[in-house]
Amino acid sequence: MKKKLRKVNAAILIIGNEILSGRTEDKNVSFIAKWLNDKAGISVDEIHIIPDISSKIIKTVKILSKKYNYVFTTGGIGPTHDDITAKSISRAFNKKYEHHKEAYKILEKYYGKNKFNDGRKKMSKMPRSSSLIYNPSSAAPGFKIKNVFCLPGVPSILQSMMYNCLTYLIKGKKTFSTSINLSTVESNIAKELEKIQKQFQNSIQIGSYPFFKLGKVGVSVVLRSKNKHKIALCKKLITTKIIKVKKIKVI
Amino acid sequence: MKKKLRKVNAAILIIGNEILSGRTEDKNVSFIAKWLNDKAGISVDEIHIIPDISSKIIKTVKILSKKYNYVFTTGGIGPTHDDITAKSISRAFNKKYEHHKEAYKILEKYYGKNKFNDGRKKMSKMPRSSSLIYNPSSAAPGFKIKNVFCLPGVPSILQSMMYNCLTYLIKGKKTFSTSINLSTVESNIAKELEKIQKQFQNSIQIGSYPFFKLGKVGVSVVLRSKNKHKIALCKKLITTKIIKVKKIKVI
Repeated sequence: MKKKLRKVNAAILIIGNEILSGRTEDKNVSFIAKWLNDKAGISVDEIHIIPDISSKIIKTVKILSKKYNYVFTTGGIGPTHDDITAKSISRAFNKKYEHHKEAYKILEKYYGKNKFNDGRKKMSKMPRSSSLIYNPSSAAPGFKIKNVFCLPGVPSILQSMMYNCLTYLIKGKKTFSTSINLSTVESNIAKELEKIQKQFQNSIQIGSYPFFKLGKVGVSVVLRSKNKHKIALCKKLITTKIIKVKKIKVI
Repeated sequence: MKKKLRKVNAAILIIGNEILSGRTEDKNVSFIAKWLNDKAGISVDEIHIIPDISSKIIKTVKILSKKYNYVFTTGGIGPTHDDITAKSISRAFNKKYEHHKEAYKILEKYYGKNKFNDGRKKMSKMPRSSSLIYNPSSAAPGFKIKNVFCLPGVPSILQSMMYNCLTYLIKGKKTFSTSINLSTVESNIAKELEKIQKQFQNSIQIGSYPFFKLGKVGVSVVLRSKNKHKIALCKKLITTKIIKVKKIKVI
């Protein structure tokens, strides 16, 4: 872990036709975003989902890696023909696409020499000078090249690997959040909430999200800030200026 | 419904801090993508998820609306201060942000004159010359301006409104798909699958997705094409060249 920065941000790049077609619901965005904030104080500021098309991967990786401190890609690092992330990212950074010696050894040991076929060997290919992201679930490592972290698409495997990204990350300041669930509708509190948002313009993001659950209608007011003390102050103000005045039930 | 095109595409733009922070898992991408393909033969080729920041909304809407036949935005059209989609899109297209007469009437009737407060009135504001997307769930309409369709973020409401987009859409040719679930691992079929993909290079997308469910390990091979007949041919080839030769169990 290196020195602390106040604001460190990241983008997520989901690579996969299966998400774009709607066949598979993405489960990685929510996990990665929460994990990065909780463990490393890094905020996810943009997410792209693109198909398994090399030119699109190259273009998007270049744009996002310039724009953000880190980029996390998911998908496309398996053994089949549609796994083209490693090759595409090699091209994006003008790096040779080649077997990583340590990755090759890890996979050879895991599968045994006799069962180490071409598909499995392919999983050790990545851009030259990549660092490995170890995989405690199924051996095949992810990799980091420049500020881009390449992870698999299978959520359980990705989740087991995130911890191994930590060693490469510069930490930022965590964003704290708190939710207040109110038994009301948004338009009943919109005006007052806007006033309070203006008071905390530069320090707190106030989000308002209607919900409809088990026949109950309500609003989640979410306060997000790098400053815990301000969140407490803001929550107090919402209680006195909105909840008490309008006699709203907190759920 | 207007004339049929062979290839019609779309982008989805998810607007919302709650998705980027990981607090809320997106449920709209998968629904919209499947719906557009099933009902209108439109393929979703790119998805962006961005925060509730006006400059980002403006920039992204401009880029995506030039690049794709249609853009579908979700989120940010409610009554609170953080709902800035309509205003931002007005700016993106240099349109006046104003009350839409019909939307105003719909909302006034729905809430009744006495309860039609400022927050509710705000929901009738949108770019001048927008067309309404009616909302059978909770009255507040979405809107279409140029090739951009603006829908709410709450999945149940969005889903009830999709049908009302249909009238504005030019239909394309539907993409058909079929899945073959195999009791094997990807590396066991990678080489043969690549060969078959090469034979259908221009007509079929073959995707290979490992799964791990209830202690079972397997691979879903997904064939996607605008040509049903080719899918059947490809499936037959996978059966004879891979499944039978390697004696793989189909799950």
